Amino acid sequence: MVGVLTLEEIESGLFRGISRDVTTIRVFGGQVAAQSLVAAGRTVRPDRPVHSLHAYFLLPGDPAQPIVYQVERTRDGRSFSTRRVVATQRGQAIFSLSASFHRPEEGPAHQAPWAQSAASPPDPGESGDEPGRTSAGNHSFPIEVRPVRAPLADPADPRQQSWIRADGALPDDPLIHVCVLAYASDLGLLAAALPPHGLSPLSGEVMMASLDHAMWFHQPFRADDWLYYANESPIASGARALARGEVYDRAGRLVASVVQEGLVRRVGPG
Amino acid sequence: MVGVLTLEEIESGLFRGISRDVTTIRVFGGQVAAQSLVAAGRTVRPDRPVHSLHAYFLLPGDPAQPIVYQVERTRDGRSFSTRRVVATQRGQAIFSLSASFHRPEEGPAHQAPWAQSAASPPDPGESGDEPGRTSAGNHSFPIEVRPVRAPLADPADPRQQSWIRADGALPDDPLIHVCVLAYASDLGLLAAALPPHGLSPLSGEVMMASLDHAMWFHQPFRADDWLYYANESPIASGARALARGEVYDRAGRLVASVVQEGLVRRVGPG
Repeated sequence: MVGVLTLEEIESGLFRGISRDVTTIRVFGGQVAAQSLVAAGRTVRPDRPVHSLHAYFLLPGDPAQPIVYQVERTRDGRSFSTRRVVATQRGQAIFSLSASFHRPEEGPAHQAPWAQSAASPPDPGESGDEPGRTSAGNHSFPIEVRPVRAPLADPADPRQQSWIRADGALPDDPLIHVCVLAYASDLGLLAAALPPHGLSPLSGEVMMASLDHAMWFHQPFRADDWLYYANESPIASGARALARGEVYDRAGRLVASVVQEGLVRRVGPG
Repeated sequence: MVGVLTLEEIESGLFRGISRDVTTIRVFGGQVAAQSLVAAGRTVRPDRPVHSLHAYFLLPGDPAQPIVYQVERTRDGRSFSTRRVVATQRGQAIFSLSASFHRPEEGPAHQAPWAQSAASPPDPGESGDEPGRTSAGNHSFPIEVRPVRAPLADPADPRQQSWIRADGALPDDPLIHVCVLAYASDLGLLAAALPPHGLSPLSGEVMMASLDHAMWFHQPFRADDWLYYANESPIASGARALARGEVYDRAGRLVASVVQEGLVRRVGPG
């Protein structure tokens, strides 16, 4: 996981990254988002953690080619820094991301009650019994994912929950933990839109593609410890679905919020 | 309202707008967002409606100066067009926005149940009895806002609801309706974060500023008919609050979703 977040610095604000898995047809979107955030973060003073990102997926990436990340220093203010990153391959923009960084401040704090408080993280003994890597379609990911299945859940309910974490220990740099979560948060989020339609992501009846990705990081967390990822899709319309995610740590602290819109097209017969 | 959305085209992709109310200290954020979206939309073929935007507020705007909007044509694909707009004053970027446009397509459709189904829009007879313009602080807005007060609501609950609409008839151009909602959606959204702390936006105890703004437009709507705007703040931490909004039409169709993060600083004694 850490290898994929290590970018070569070609020039100030200009980076190059390679894809983790070159056997897939397209680069995994979460990887481009995470590498873009690494590039942005490396141009910002380290005492300003990232607190949000907003990104658009423009073209599928080719995993056999390096990806170049160009950082625009949009603004450095007294409390906030803003960056924009454009990821390109063969002269074409494949992805753009804006991110904001904020020097730590105190302020009023509240959090909505944790509806999932009955859930508990996977048994420590379990982790050795299952493969550490998750695969979906042709991809394999350096993220452990344990779906949480509510016994009485309506199978048509556009909600899903899982415990997730990096498949190994991570260095302490907080930016790495945020980038790993950016990577992991793109995994399966849109699938929350499928249950109302009796569709499965691997059925071949549906083509899905992430259109955008937005995240807000509310408090520090570790991505190599279990995080509870709750997803829901409030709406699909016009071949687009909206999906929301909330990320809690073991203590029930809301550490990040995610929103993604995706293209959802029926394909095949009928 | 329509006047503020009329921009002067200086060159292809380069526009200039003026502020509606030059007596305020800062330009209203919703106005810059709406004007940016007009600029982006004018560079996209009209058969591709806008379906999302992601923006950062960078610096306060000066209402006495025109604002220049420069559009980058990020990509025109087979189904989607993407644009980025940077708004500047005196050579400094004050706001940046990315937006995506999608040719209409059919696809699987669902919507979460409308929890507010008991609410009904203001009585048609009411509209003549109240001033059409809403004011907050030093600002006045060309938007009618009717707060909905639940009789048994917890005063510390970080949720608020209102009916909103433009204060006059709008032309049929769908982009205008989206821009009016982008304008209106910035009005009071962050105030949903204050009830848990016993704070009021006008009390002088708190300084609030929008940091970003994201919107997804799920289906066509009219902004000169009543829209139900439900806001909530799931979290505040580190002097930043997250607020979410959902916009329904009279029929209970979810027409747009909004997420905004804002700076919330305690000020004054204590």
